Amino acid sequence: MTSRLEPFSFARRIPSTPSIGSSTVTKPDHIHLSFGFAAPHLFPIEQLSASAADAVTQHGRKALQYSGAPGPGKILQWIQERSLVHGIRADLNQILVTYGSTQGIDLATRILVDPGDHVWVESPSFFSALQSFRAAEAVVTSFPIDEDGVRVDLIENALVEAKRDGRPIPKLLYTMPTYHNPGGVTLSIERRKRLVQLAEAYNFFILEDDAYSELNFTGNQYPPLYTLFPERVIYLNTFSKIIGPGLRLGWVIADQQVIQKVRLLNLGGSIGVFTQEILAQLIDNFAFQNHVDALSAHYRKQRDVMAEALREHFGEHVSFHLPEGGFYIWLRFADHVNTSEWVQDAASRGVSFVEGKSFFADPEGYHYARLCFSYVSEEQIVRGVKLLADSYFSYIGREAVRSS
Amino acid sequence: MTSRLEPFSFARRIPSTPSIGSSTVTKPDHIHLSFGFAAPHLFPIEQLSASAADAVTQHGRKALQYSGAPGPGKILQWIQERSLVHGIRADLNQILVTYGSTQGIDLATRILVDPGDHVWVESPSFFSALQSFRAAEAVVTSFPIDEDGVRVDLIENALVEAKRDGRPIPKLLYTMPTYHNPGGVTLSIERRKRLVQLAEAYNFFILEDDAYSELNFTGNQYPPLYTLFPERVIYLNTFSKIIGPGLRLGWVIADQQVIQKVRLLNLGGSIGVFTQEILAQLIDNFAFQNHVDALSAHYRKQRDVMAEALREHFGEHVSFHLPEGGFYIWLRFADHVNTSEWVQDAASRGVSFVEGKSFFADPEGYHYARLCFSYVSEEQIVRGVKLLADSYFSYIGREAVRSS
Repeated sequence: MTSRLEPFSFARRIPSTPSIGSSTVTKPDHIHLSFGFAAPHLFPIEQLSASAADAVTQHGRKALQYSGAPGPGKILQWIQERSLVHGIRADLNQILVTYGSTQGIDLATRILVDPGDHVWVESPSFFSALQSFRAAEAVVTSFPIDEDGVRVDLIENALVEAKRDGRPIPKLLYTMPTYHNPGGVTLSIERRKRLVQLAEAYNFFILEDDAYSELNFTGNQYPPLYTLFPERVIYLNTFSKIIGPGLRLGWVIADQQVIQKVRLLNLGGSIGVFTQEILAQLIDNFAFQNHVDALSAHYRKQRDVMAEALREHFGEHVSFHLPEGGFYIWLRFADHVNTSEWVQDAASRGVSFVEGKSFFADPEGYHYARLCFSYVSEEQIVRGVKLLADSYFSYIGREAVRSS
Repeated sequence: MTSRLEPFSFARRIPSTPSIGSSTVTKPDHIHLSFGFAAPHLFPIEQLSASAADAVTQHGRKALQYSGAPGPGKILQWIQERSLVHGIRADLNQILVTYGSTQGIDLATRILVDPGDHVWVESPSFFSALQSFRAAEAVVTSFPIDEDGVRVDLIENALVEAKRDGRPIPKLLYTMPTYHNPGGVTLSIERRKRLVQLAEAYNFFILEDDAYSELNFTGNQYPPLYTLFPERVIYLNTFSKIIGPGLRLGWVIADQQVIQKVRLLNLGGSIGVFTQEILAQLIDNFAFQNHVDALSAHYRKQRDVMAEALREHFGEHVSFHLPEGGFYIWLRFADHVNTSEWVQDAASRGVSFVEGKSFFADPEGYHYARLCFSYVSEEQIVRGVKLLADSYFSYIGREAVRSS
């Protein structure tokens, strides 16, 4: 219609860079140490197939209506009961089903954060969460993690200083305390207690992302932050790691006041009730504890294979924390190593990983890399780590030449 | 943990009132003239049941992975081909699948609108859209509709005056040009042409909500605004009215630049690919044109039954436009009638409708009511309209007594 279209100024809130999920290019024949995906062969396909047919046959018309059949109610009850295993007591009206925990992060951010408000995060942190905070025009400040999770002492210092200097207290602190993505670390019980004390003393919300908590390799139990301070912790979890990410179903547990506000934003009401009907049929007749036990045993073995391969092929060139659960090993290289400089070379050798910088709000983290042991086979882990080492040593060889 | 919790100031952007979808209370035995839902008995349940089983059996593991199996790709192609029927030519990278068109509205708003920006809407308008604009902290201005859709002449005057006086031009104009919810009217071809000329001259985006366009009772064709100005129209549609709302799948068609920006906000990447696999199986083997022809014939009959019942029971007490498609008849009562004052009485008699005021950004529209003829049976329509008339005449009888 027109050849001279005027430029249009889009909203400032749009992040300028895509989150990693939409930018990583990989090929089908790669060994995907980059994919933070569950192992497909552990999906409960047979049960799900039967459940899908049952759900449609028994509740088809209602399942296709906005409000669904009994499914959404059954799922809430399942979440309520399963949460008790982790020490979380919640009324049904404190639970809200979301499109994966990513939507939970986005909704929580939108109810808490106005443009210019402060959000504190861990460094490294989950890239989709960082993207939500950018989209909310939050000012993001990062706090490092160590072997025991985020450095709560540094958070405390920053709060003390902010209050003393009249600078803003965060509205929200986002943390993944258990089996951190990508760090693989778990927040100690002592730090958990201190963190919620700080949330109370300084009146901010904690957004607790517990996506990996069912994948427990050690039997050690850590209380969810929510159980320590339900009034100011918004708890997020998801079926993505335990049933299948394609369902895109997660949940939020929070104070009723918070849930009411999220409902106001959760435009259009019901989350895909059709999928909920199918999932409800599945969990109704499903030995869930056996399933997660099997998942945990499998992933623990994968973790051990990866850790051994890393020690064998990288020796002293990397350090990492052996995760107590979850999907990831977070590699630390020497400070002068820049993983972004050889990620393409690694890809050309047939192995993918995620560059450290993707997990930081600020330009940093170049000497880290995230490997995921969940999606690939043991054989691929061994071969992938070998290829990765080839790429790395080729890179530092070139580095050595360059600096000589 | 605490008995003296400090108050917390949530984000300003949270709307203070719920959208109608979450606040209307109805009972199962009511005649639901309030529900803007598709008729459940017209859902393609048998085909969907087979598709669900096939999708899981054939593609189960991949369907449960983030990216899915062939489903998401097939759906994009189906949308592309079906859009051609309506004159819309779009490349695959101009199409984005969303969680219903409500998410499409929300995403489009978030990429276009900063707090304080202006959004122009029709009065009446779709309540979930109004909720999105409030959540984006937009300044909302309304323009009335008549029999030929929104009053584009008034929009033009307002643009001329705004430019002359140095006041803001809208970033976005939201319209449902075809089979308007709740107004039932359709924007004339002449007005369509003028509206896109204005969008070009004043450089704003049109958000075109085309949710009902397949439900065509007359055979009359109206070009989607998108076809007239693809650079500045964001087109939304949904499977909710034609397959089933429980799927919560819709789509956006827009300029590639717009789609890229939406992708940046569409946090967490893939929309529930599991549901997409099932839907893809369905539409692969589905006589879609026959299906929408049957839907349209059925809803046209329902509309006629409702219109006749309204004339019989209300006579000169209401006026309405006979819709050429869609789900709704929009009743106008005398100016002194306030439908909010007898909606409860109607409920107590067993019939629900939606009060006019729910569809307006400002406090107005009290003498309107929305009736939906899609969800209920013919017998229920006849009985429901009779009960509604009983309630209304009881109300105006009391009014007459009150004013005498």
